[in-house]
Amino acid sequence: MDSQHQSNAGTERAAELAPFGGRNANIPYPCGPEANPDRKIVDSVEEAVRRVGLKDGMTVSFHHAFREGDKTINMVVGVLARMGFKDLTLAASSLLSANAPLIEHIKNGVIRRIYTSGMRGKLGDAISNGLMDTPVTFHSHGGRPALIERGELQIDVAFLGVSACDPFGNANGVSGRSWCGALGYAMVDAQFARNVVMLTEEVVPYPNAPASIRQDQVDWIVQVDEVGDPAKISVGAARATTNPRELLIARLSAEVMEHAGYFEDGFSMQTGTGGSATATTRFLEDRMRSKGIAAAWALGGQTGSMVDLHKKGLIGTLLDTQSFDAVAARSLAESPRHSEISAHVYANPLAKGAVVDRLDMVILSALEIDLDFNVNVLTGSDGVVRGAIGGHADTAARAKLAIVVAPLLRTRIPTVVEKVTTRVTPGETIGVLVTDHGIAVNPRRPDVADRLKAAGLPVVPIEDLHRRAIAISGQPQPLRFLDRVVGHVRYRDGTLIDTVRQVAP
Amino acid sequence: MDSQHQSNAGTERAAELAPFGGRNANIPYPCGPEANPDRKIVDSVEEAVRRVGLKDGMTVSFHHAFREGDKTINMVVGVLARMGFKDLTLAASSLLSANAPLIEHIKNGVIRRIYTSGMRGKLGDAISNGLMDTPVTFHSHGGRPALIERGELQIDVAFLGVSACDPFGNANGVSGRSWCGALGYAMVDAQFARNVVMLTEEVVPYPNAPASIRQDQVDWIVQVDEVGDPAKISVGAARATTNPRELLIARLSAEVMEHAGYFEDGFSMQTGTGGSATATTRFLEDRMRSKGIAAAWALGGQTGSMVDLHKKGLIGTLLDTQSFDAVAARSLAESPRHSEISAHVYANPLAKGAVVDRLDMVILSALEIDLDFNVNVLTGSDGVVRGAIGGHADTAARAKLAIVVAPLLRTRIPTVVEKVTTRVTPGETIGVLVTDHGIAVNPRRPDVADRLKAAGLPVVPIEDLHRRAIAISGQPQPLRFLDRVVGHVRYRDGTLIDTVRQVAP
Repeated sequence: MDSQHQSNAGTERAAELAPFGGRNANIPYPCGPEANPDRKIVDSVEEAVRRVGLKDGMTVSFHHAFREGDKTINMVVGVLARMGFKDLTLAASSLLSANAPLIEHIKNGVIRRIYTSGMRGKLGDAISNGLMDTPVTFHSHGGRPALIERGELQIDVAFLGVSACDPFGNANGVSGRSWCGALGYAMVDAQFARNVVMLTEEVVPYPNAPASIRQDQVDWIVQVDEVGDPAKISVGAARATTNPRELLIARLSAEVMEHAGYFEDGFSMQTGTGGSATATTRFLEDRMRSKGIAAAWALGGQTGSMVDLHKKGLIGTLLDTQSFDAVAARSLAESPRHSEISAHVYANPLAKGAVVDRLDMVILSALEIDLDFNVNVLTGSDGVVRGAIGGHADTAARAKLAIVVAPLLRTRIPTVVEKVTTRVTPGETIGVLVTDHGIAVNPRRPDVADRLKAAGLPVVPIEDLHRRAIAISGQPQPLRFLDRVVGHVRYRDGTLIDTVRQVAP
Repeated sequence: MDSQHQSNAGTERAAELAPFGGRNANIPYPCGPEANPDRKIVDSVEEAVRRVGLKDGMTVSFHHAFREGDKTINMVVGVLARMGFKDLTLAASSLLSANAPLIEHIKNGVIRRIYTSGMRGKLGDAISNGLMDTPVTFHSHGGRPALIERGELQIDVAFLGVSACDPFGNANGVSGRSWCGALGYAMVDAQFARNVVMLTEEVVPYPNAPASIRQDQVDWIVQVDEVGDPAKISVGAARATTNPRELLIARLSAEVMEHAGYFEDGFSMQTGTGGSATATTRFLEDRMRSKGIAAAWALGGQTGSMVDLHKKGLIGTLLDTQSFDAVAARSLAESPRHSEISAHVYANPLAKGAVVDRLDMVILSALEIDLDFNVNVLTGSDGVVRGAIGGHADTAARAKLAIVVAPLLRTRIPTVVEKVTTRVTPGETIGVLVTDHGIAVNPRRPDVADRLKAAGLPVVPIEDLHRRAIAISGQPQPLRFLDRVVGHVRYRDGTLIDTVRQVAP
């Protein structure tokens, strides 16, 4: 405290303070009637890039609220490529199949490093086949703001696509014509980036309220034709299922939620993405009604199923980082108890309090889960990157009970394996696995096992599920990888929990 | 950018990253079923003070939303005194007559330095009579976050009194039983302070939404009997007037607003505090209706008069830093277009965009205004501190037109003077003076003078108003001051615009 002490002491004599030199002397913008209220609006992305002083080697960031409908990332990186930038670090909250055009920009040296929650499609394939010299950093949604707070990830310029903002940059995801709903990832970048460039389809009258991204966070504004297509938000991970096997798993997982010990009035939950996970929500209604209870709140990416329970009074508050469909976006706009939260508030382990810290139960999906309950949501059974960490590790770590839902096999490939190809979420944070062939409880949670057995649920050792899978599919051939590391899987606390290796040709 | 470049490069090899060491290895709070969701709640202010590690010489901060009804500042400083702390810097967003008990704590060396927007009553009197060894720093509402951003004012612990918060610290001013309304000052401290201790009358179920102060900003929570009496918020500066002279001035100032050149559909305004200023609002309704226009937004401390126009559709959005009465607080809770903003967003000259930057007209009060239109809102005609800078200098600097309203004399003492006792707001930022004896326009604004004259308003040189005041009151005796400086008046950009000297005995 000595330095501060001295700093205060330094102001004790008037002579040491700079004298007043006119109202415009020391402030960044001219005052009064001559001030330009539209000073932040520039004509093009190029102009905004020049104004922020982007240089080779710097870090640019993006949010992924539009998911497969995003039109901002590819467009902006294309502009940066045409402007001749090299060696950039791309920090997107996540990347999806739609981002395949990035492959060319990586080949050409525009993008040298990537931070992301995940990737899919051709991009994931190319990365797994050794596209980049530097391993991709895969982080969770809570781990990303933690990497920022620790200083490893310093965002020089955030390019944030929104449907509408006002001339000072106040923006939300529920105005204009392309509603993405909650801007929970963009809010992190707006909070922490040195420079924020807003890309907006529409400039609406001041003040645009409520402001998810505030004027004091925004440097420049560029009007563009389109930032994203909301119709494609629910493509892929966020889809609603009609698959009978997924519905069976969902029913079983709702039973687990009912009997595991946390199904009391005022409980809290997150049901994640993936067919079985989101479908679980639908099976909760009867169980809540017959027990006469309601959830105090539900967390995470929000869906129409959650909104339905919310409207029926069965979920008091929705805490929303990302709206997975138009129903959720509409609810965010209309319900005073549907609240938008940033990914920092959602799950940052360094925050003074993250919402996941108070979570009772979470339903999570898995590409693989192993005999120690470690979960892989990042690489497929072929070892190729085709998923995303998302809030998986964050919620599993913090919830009182993390329930993984997955089919025992996918196209004759076992989901329950001896050892996961890629460890994303450590087994010590997983409580229960629900499959279409039975339920396994982590031996670390005998309390939960006892309750589920008492309720008559089909609880078996996870080894039994594994044996059954092998019996159906046969022992899978071990995957062949090269030594070269193409991805670092970082746990939410920043540590390295696994690496992803280049697949053998 | 080299350091960042290297920082990223440092993560390119997996061996350089710390390996995963278990879910609780590197995070501040234990995870899972054993986590304590009420970990932030402590039994007493003393315990919170111990937890944050407060030391002699550190800086503690407070907000003043409860104004004369505040019960937090005196209580907490009393606790700190009993705990034996010395040499503290007290950074309150403002101080009022209710804070007279601080005099003893200053005498006893508990408080060594003060940052505040102003002070009144016995405390102002004692300061003006030389109570402190170190001059008080007087700042504007926008200047305060700028002092914080520049690092001169570093808040070690913010003690923030609220009516209600949840067990993680999510708080607003419109829940619980003691609604203060907008928490615009507290939001600044929550954003910038190293440690935040929430004092709350009530702990409500999680999540308390909307959150003006968020869980990720709050360290500790203490439940206390009372944090403030909302009935006393409107005592003093924020009162509604029935004084005929003030109403006359208010009518005239509404005419100035109508004819000065900015009364167009979609205009913006702030009407400040003080009898004439707040009353002006009431006279605007007819003028807006007859011209068929509405204001897009109104700014600042909000009052029932503003809410009335808002409800009638004559003001689109209310941007509220501080609710001056129960009507305003109720509106903040109920109207989706009544938005709370922090003092940082309101007026910080270092912000990427402050709301005042876009303001058309502001009505401001004055204790004195001089022939160069400099305004004093800090010291009385006796030279004693009895006011506050508030948003005066901030709005005057940024609005297209700043209109000062004041009676020509107060109890036979001239308000229009040759030279203000204390220069708070520079004359170059003031456009018009409205008194009960006529209107003066700053010669820097001939455009405005022309329009007001064309509208038939009684525009006279400010020298005429000064002569008339002297003719009524006689030439006042010059005030006698000692050399000793008791206060530094800081302009919003941090420069020293004037000093306050000790009054002669």
